[in-house]
Amino acid sequence: MAGASRTLTLAQALPLDGGGELVDATLAYETYGELNEDRSNAILLCHALTGDQYVASEHPVTGKPGWWERMVGAGKPIDTDRYHVICANVIGSCMGSIGPASAASDGKPYAMRFPVITIRDMVRGLVALLDALEIETLHAVVGGSMGGMQALSLAANWPERAARVLVIASTSRHSAQNIAFHELGRQAVMADPRWNQGDYYGGEAPDSGLAVARMAAHITYLSEEALTEKFGRNLQDRDAKSFGFDADFQVESYLRYQGTGFTQRFDANSYLYITRAMDYFDLAEEHGGKLANAFAGTDARFCLVSFDSDWLYPTSESRHVVRALNAAGAAVSFVELSAPHGHDSFLLDVPALDRVVKGFIE
Amino acid sequence: MAGASRTLTLAQALPLDGGGELVDATLAYETYGELNEDRSNAILLCHALTGDQYVASEHPVTGKPGWWERMVGAGKPIDTDRYHVICANVIGSCMGSIGPASAASDGKPYAMRFPVITIRDMVRGLVALLDALEIETLHAVVGGSMGGMQALSLAANWPERAARVLVIASTSRHSAQNIAFHELGRQAVMADPRWNQGDYYGGEAPDSGLAVARMAAHITYLSEEALTEKFGRNLQDRDAKSFGFDADFQVESYLRYQGTGFTQRFDANSYLYITRAMDYFDLAEEHGGKLANAFAGTDARFCLVSFDSDWLYPTSESRHVVRALNAAGAAVSFVELSAPHGHDSFLLDVPALDRVVKGFIE
Repeated sequence: MAGASRTLTLAQALPLDGGGELVDATLAYETYGELNEDRSNAILLCHALTGDQYVASEHPVTGKPGWWERMVGAGKPIDTDRYHVICANVIGSCMGSIGPASAASDGKPYAMRFPVITIRDMVRGLVALLDALEIETLHAVVGGSMGGMQALSLAANWPERAARVLVIASTSRHSAQNIAFHELGRQAVMADPRWNQGDYYGGEAPDSGLAVARMAAHITYLSEEALTEKFGRNLQDRDAKSFGFDADFQVESYLRYQGTGFTQRFDANSYLYITRAMDYFDLAEEHGGKLANAFAGTDARFCLVSFDSDWLYPTSESRHVVRALNAAGAAVSFVELSAPHGHDSFLLDVPALDRVVKGFIE
Repeated sequence: MAGASRTLTLAQALPLDGGGELVDATLAYETYGELNEDRSNAILLCHALTGDQYVASEHPVTGKPGWWERMVGAGKPIDTDRYHVICANVIGSCMGSIGPASAASDGKPYAMRFPVITIRDMVRGLVALLDALEIETLHAVVGGSMGGMQALSLAANWPERAARVLVIASTSRHSAQNIAFHELGRQAVMADPRWNQGDYYGGEAPDSGLAVARMAAHITYLSEEALTEKFGRNLQDRDAKSFGFDADFQVESYLRYQGTGFTQRFDANSYLYITRAMDYFDLAEEHGGKLANAFAGTDARFCLVSFDSDWLYPTSESRHVVRALNAAGAAVSFVELSAPHGHDSFLLDVPALDRVVKGFIE
């Protein structure tokens, strides 16, 4: 299906957790389905680290279908015949919203002059968009992975803005291991001489470093079982080992493909900024060190979903959020789904997730 | 303690699984304790990927103590008052044994002209060393991680050469996830322009790429719990986040330190060759696809040890080997130890491991 592609430049400066502000911040977003008369049927979808607003529209760079076509559309679990679905590219990203590749006031790209942002800053941008669209209260805010962090941040900091909060395969804080994998990716980007302290726009981009970063991240998105099931020790287009350094194994070939494919559609500096925002995310710390405090003011209904094979944000992280919501007296349901794909399960064919999503937002 | 540092240049060419051979192959090794008259008290220790022969001697580059000082020495679990301990740098490595940095027949470093080797090739080199030392049967062969692969390979291919086989935190084959992490490291090295297709000797080495590879590997050596326990989300030498790209978090600082420290002592091409050998390792495949076949001819006693927090080579991999040994009718004991450190537990303070090692080799 085709979404409506729109951009909005915020009239007000966007204040940031780091102390600065973004002026003339543009947000690029897609919408699907009609907003009803009393503006009560809007669902905000929040995208993941390397996601974008093309939820159910063809990606303008890759030509691939939207990343959640299976979930969003007419008659689908998030039914665009009933709901007005909005998804905006987060600030710091590179698909039309303001980010390191955008022109600063001097007309040159921000590059590393772009301020370090937080998940709450991203959500502040989304709330400004809702203000501009005159949507007071969302029917639901929905997100997986980093999208789930945004949904939690919206619920905690703007509790009146969403009636339902659906958080899939996510966490309320980045663990030491989560930070370690992201730091590895950032160091891979920065080790590429073409990165050039972030000033590569108009020249060659640090694609080699960014591809390595993507490979590292990709390993964390799949379970060990999924890798074994999908590739095992199978060789790629050959009958025997080459005794060389080609991609002998299918898993090597797959990772190289994931790495190089990613560089076509993503900006290396955006990768640095967004991973940094995720590493900084600690919802409890923002609220006096107690996660339950984050949800003290909420009347929203929550639903948390985890996957048993997700080792990036394992079920224990979702349970941690659920316990805090319980302590805050919030209405919350929780389900751990069994799926073999690891963290990426939220994007893949897991019929049980479809049912949970459909049931919760109705 | 000080070991005796020796080198041996093999008189015979060393045939390789890939089809070629290595001529004039030098092996650098350390010995500790006296060989007894009937040459029956020798223990061969096999080192891990980035290990070396300096088991219980000061490292000549870093000045640090040997990597298994806690296990090897007078009165220690591997008691050098009783046993003659031998540890040789594996072929392909860079601490004195033949490897990519060694001079080829034209006097220039092999670099990527070095043949791709296997774990069995490494062991073939070790067996040639035992031949030269006139050690017919080892009291024991002992190894952790890649050292355990060598111990298994020796037991499978030269079953008469060791009476006891101790395999710690290891596996009989590299999984898709294991290969994926190694491929990530290789791609990080190769993405560094200083790598220059392997021809960097005499110039600047690809330290940036190698540091990233080491960071990736290091994450896999520690458990999620160990990282959380050790670092959590603690900040490094600061009270608040910097809103920049410095190492704000202790875990970032630690990883950067591990990455850059590693490049002082290790050759990037050796890292490529040794990881490749590990990825190629599949002991069952070498023996008609059935792991039990690998152990058909053995009279040795085996002991397998795993750690419950090791997600690189989890307990299930050790159990897989134990079942094959059972099927082959071999004498085998197995223990899963509880230790919080992850894969690196075999190098760290785990008193239960000391007891297992001491008990098994007596």
